[in-house]
Amino acid sequence: MSDFEQQSLRILTTLADPGEVAALSPEDLACLAREIRQVIISTVSMTGGHLAPSLGVVELTLALLRAFNPARDKIVWDVGHQAYAYKILTGRLESFHTLRTFGGISGFPKRSESPYDHFGVGHSSTSISAALGMAMARDMDKKDHHVISVIGDGSMTAGLAYEGLNQAGGWGGKLIVVLNDNEMSIAKNVGALSLFLSRKLAHRWVLRLKKDMEGWIKSLPYGQDLMGYVRRGEESFKSFFTPGMLFEAFRFNYLGPIDGHDVERMSQVFEEVKNIDGPVLVHVLTKKGKGYVPAESNPTYFHGVGCFEPETGLSEPGSAVAPATYTEVFGNTLFQKARTNPRIIAITAAMPEGTGLSAFAEKLPGQFVDVGICEQHAVTFAAGLATQGYRPVVAIYSTFLQRSYDQIVHDVCLQNLPVTFCLDRGGLVGEDGPTHHGAFDLSFLRHIPNLVLMAPKDEAELARMLVTALAHDGPAAIRYPRGMGVGAKPDLRPAPIPLGQGELVRQGTDIAVIAIGSRVHPCLAAAKAFCAATGASVAVLNARFVKPLPEAEIMELAGACKKLLVVEENALSGGFGSAVLELLADKGALAGLTVKRLGLPDAFVPQGPQKTLRETLGLDTAGIEKALSELMG
Amino acid sequence: MSDFEQQSLRILTTLADPGEVAALSPEDLACLAREIRQVIISTVSMTGGHLAPSLGVVELTLALLRAFNPARDKIVWDVGHQAYAYKILTGRLESFHTLRTFGGISGFPKRSESPYDHFGVGHSSTSISAALGMAMARDMDKKDHHVISVIGDGSMTAGLAYEGLNQAGGWGGKLIVVLNDNEMSIAKNVGALSLFLSRKLAHRWVLRLKKDMEGWIKSLPYGQDLMGYVRRGEESFKSFFTPGMLFEAFRFNYLGPIDGHDVERMSQVFEEVKNIDGPVLVHVLTKKGKGYVPAESNPTYFHGVGCFEPETGLSEPGSAVAPATYTEVFGNTLFQKARTNPRIIAITAAMPEGTGLSAFAEKLPGQFVDVGICEQHAVTFAAGLATQGYRPVVAIYSTFLQRSYDQIVHDVCLQNLPVTFCLDRGGLVGEDGPTHHGAFDLSFLRHIPNLVLMAPKDEAELARMLVTALAHDGPAAIRYPRGMGVGAKPDLRPAPIPLGQGELVRQGTDIAVIAIGSRVHPCLAAAKAFCAATGASVAVLNARFVKPLPEAEIMELAGACKKLLVVEENALSGGFGSAVLELLADKGALAGLTVKRLGLPDAFVPQGPQKTLRETLGLDTAGIEKALSELMG
Repeated sequence: MSDFEQQSLRILTTLADPGEVAALSPEDLACLAREIRQVIISTVSMTGGHLAPSLGVVELTLALLRAFNPARDKIVWDVGHQAYAYKILTGRLESFHTLRTFGGISGFPKRSESPYDHFGVGHSSTSISAALGMAMARDMDKKDHHVISVIGDGSMTAGLAYEGLNQAGGWGGKLIVVLNDNEMSIAKNVGALSLFLSRKLAHRWVLRLKKDMEGWIKSLPYGQDLMGYVRRGEESFKSFFTPGMLFEAFRFNYLGPIDGHDVERMSQVFEEVKNIDGPVLVHVLTKKGKGYVPAESNPTYFHGVGCFEPETGLSEPGSAVAPATYTEVFGNTLFQKARTNPRIIAITAAMPEGTGLSAFAEKLPGQFVDVGICEQHAVTFAAGLATQGYRPVVAIYSTFLQRSYDQIVHDVCLQNLPVTFCLDRGGLVGEDGPTHHGAFDLSFLRHIPNLVLMAPKDEAELARMLVTALAHDGPAAIRYPRGMGVGAKPDLRPAPIPLGQGELVRQGTDIAVIAIGSRVHPCLAAAKAFCAATGASVAVLNARFVKPLPEAEIMELAGACKKLLVVEENALSGGFGSAVLELLADKGALAGLTVKRLGLPDAFVPQGPQKTLRETLGLDTAGIEKALSELMG
Repeated sequence: MSDFEQQSLRILTTLADPGEVAALSPEDLACLAREIRQVIISTVSMTGGHLAPSLGVVELTLALLRAFNPARDKIVWDVGHQAYAYKILTGRLESFHTLRTFGGISGFPKRSESPYDHFGVGHSSTSISAALGMAMARDMDKKDHHVISVIGDGSMTAGLAYEGLNQAGGWGGKLIVVLNDNEMSIAKNVGALSLFLSRKLAHRWVLRLKKDMEGWIKSLPYGQDLMGYVRRGEESFKSFFTPGMLFEAFRFNYLGPIDGHDVERMSQVFEEVKNIDGPVLVHVLTKKGKGYVPAESNPTYFHGVGCFEPETGLSEPGSAVAPATYTEVFGNTLFQKARTNPRIIAITAAMPEGTGLSAFAEKLPGQFVDVGICEQHAVTFAAGLATQGYRPVVAIYSTFLQRSYDQIVHDVCLQNLPVTFCLDRGGLVGEDGPTHHGAFDLSFLRHIPNLVLMAPKDEAELARMLVTALAHDGPAAIRYPRGMGVGAKPDLRPAPIPLGQGELVRQGTDIAVIAIGSRVHPCLAAAKAFCAATGASVAVLNARFVKPLPEAEIMELAGACKKLLVVEENALSGGFGSAVLELLADKGALAGLTVKRLGLPDAFVPQGPQKTLRETLGLDTAGIEKALSELMG
């Protein structure tokens, strides 16, 4: 923190303990909220991060810290991208400028970072289940602290949240769920639940109640005289049907909706709630991006954002010659294919923007479905479409597709249905850290029978692989990295690649590098540099397919070179290198070979810039060159 | 079918087409229902299968086939274990005696088996999502057939079903969901939903409505005079609050509840439903096991059952000297540990019986939680418990744990929490076929950092591994096969096994067999037979750990033998053998080695007796001996 910041953070800098929030006057609380927003905006403008969600819950955080004791009570933030104010107020003001940096504090609650972070999060909709575990533990231990789950209306659409509600309601013990309703998930909310929360449903019940009332009124003395008043009754009973009925159906007590920017009112309600036996849901209405005009007016853009200019909210204008991102190339290519093929349906789970499908959604709304945050359903729904001759393309980040593993096996691949999976953010994603790295996809997908599994060396190849998948009469998955491509412009009419055909991108006789996906170009650069320095001869194969493997190409290289280096940005355990070893063993070709594998270690990789992480893990050009040198002996 | 059966199936044998059901008289329908039950009972008594669920929906099936046209309309059975009557009526009467046998018809709907099976199922709660995909496809294709999902109240507790409901309600198109409510999942139902369906919730709403009504009545002319009638109103408005409100909240039209054994009434309702625009839920009440007294009185036992005597429902008395099942040993061992350690909590997802926890639940109810059919929640809930110092043991079949993959990675292993996963039905399960084989667990678990992964050679070792897991301060998983052990009685006080310590069960110098889990004993037998026949010297290592691997033992054997045979009952892709290859490559020990792997192929394995399947796949003693012979050259 600069001296200027120190001075301008009058209240924040004097709070020694989160408990002291409780003693502040309303004026000081308002001032504190401003200071917190200032810290969040100025930090995130430099580090990037989840700005709008965190700005939206500053007052909610203050109210929670007033009513509850975070050293004793367990507050579980769902997803956790909204917990910046909580981090700042629970001992992390000084370190907040390191947010999302290598070695710095996490963008999400993390148990090892602070005793105030009671549950590590990152993926949505886990908070009710985790909080229920904590609440049952408390009762078994005969303790009396509070357990609070804070969950957004978007997260509430995932089945896991419902499973938690269902068990909590059946159980009936003390548990507080705060529904942070900003009518948004990451994008505009979808599904029946959001319509219900916005009270658009009551109409049918009002009509039914009116009919029942008419019958009853008629049965009363003076009944006929009173019939004219039924209409008035209809009006007054409209308020009977609240969004709370849904949660009451799950046997939760319901309070709300409450203004989520009114600290006083929320504090009062939380105090009341402490005395209620049994599960309670407090419905709080907030505005995403609150207190920062650029974020309020464009909450989707500012949901998760890179660096920007704090005064204006504008990001550095991108260089006009910067290569397109993989995300953009995916979205464009799919649009080009879908505009002439009405059977292609693009499916996203609440991330049209992040997966590059916004323009697609606008131009081909009839071929686009946003199912909300529910990756399981997205996949089974796609399977249903595929049985009817459609070609669904499911675009889900690698790490979130982990939620659909069973549906991919059971509903898609077992039935050999032509569903295409597009996994953005495969490999290391950078600052979002271990909850968001796409570290495992090659390992959790490649053993599934019938699935074709690909990873492109650059964005032009991504376009070709998408075309390949769409031409294949069965399930296929493509994983590609977060960020910019290498500048390889896709063909106007990309040609499909024969299944299992690799691409020898460099000839050589001493060592054969077998690389997949984003590691192909660094391998090429490393091979060039190494050969230039040592005079060695190094071949590089762009494998393109994890399944079916380019068997002929690999076997030929293994026969010629005897020293193999296999490189991937995926867990070494069960990943691409493992597939190559299996092939070599099954062909009886191990004897005489030395095989070295580079990839992600058997550990969760921390946050940090992709470049730093790759460097640290030896997956950049220098690291690969070093491996070549070791292999050469 | 015998001649006797032909004669006794007067109506069934004359139906040429499922459409003919529509023309039958009420008397003939009743007779047909009896005939179908007769076929189901006599067949399942010989093949084993899901008796009680299928007996419960005979009339529902008839009503569906009367109202709908299964050649045109798409009926999607959730889970599908209740679809026997449907199979019999849609062209599979003649083949029904092959139910669940090798090469016979499947125990579940299967697209490749019949054009009437519109979606392959086996795991719960997929039907609404799949049906929604079909319904949207129909609308895009401007067709007008009906799409019907038939789902049990137990399946409705899984989040996937909720995700489907949510999108369907938001979408608003034509979709029919039949809720088959028998107040059961596999075991007694749990959670708020089941309480709601049984109308135990309305009370609070009635009180609230009464209060609102009092205020309104007072505002009317004669209001004070009428106050005495409010109580009467309370009674009459009780019927306003139906189980349907929950589904109405999801914007479904609700009809019911209807007697699910009254074909006429159901047929009428289905006819009505055809004309309703928008999603509809028809609530049907059935009795599990209906029409067969033994199954009606013990529906949990007859949910899925082996062979039995049709007259009495009694199974062949088990031999008193038969070895205990792995399931039993798990349940007993966990009970022994938990009775002296109150921090051990056993968790099941609706399968106390199947996972061997029934007795545990009875004797230690305070340490047992059945969360219902929701494997995702089970795991995150366990993580919550573990953060508070509890030791949750999550017992879920291997194939169903596929649903929790993301939660195992993200909520348990990333936080390194001491949750123990016990995976019954690891490997080939037999007659339930590809949807139920535990074919992939070693592959989808072994790449997850922090997880200890074990598989016992016999039931005594299972007990030791459970003790090992409970003594380990981090996540651990144990997978073991369906069925009887080998007769190895567990120690009274089983000793933990040092992590990563293998067991050399046979010395040898020519070939080293490295085996895991249920394949260790067949490997031993094969090695003995092979050595006796050839004079060769074959070592056998019981690896015990897939992670951490018994590195020292494997490296020593690789150094001594140069020929390795790795054997597992898991997908070869990314499985145990793959882990061994990774180790050998990373140690630079490949050169000079020949490694052969036996395991499950890269294909979905069909149904059939475990013995037959193992024989076919070369995983039995003879197959292993053959592999030894090939390896010896």
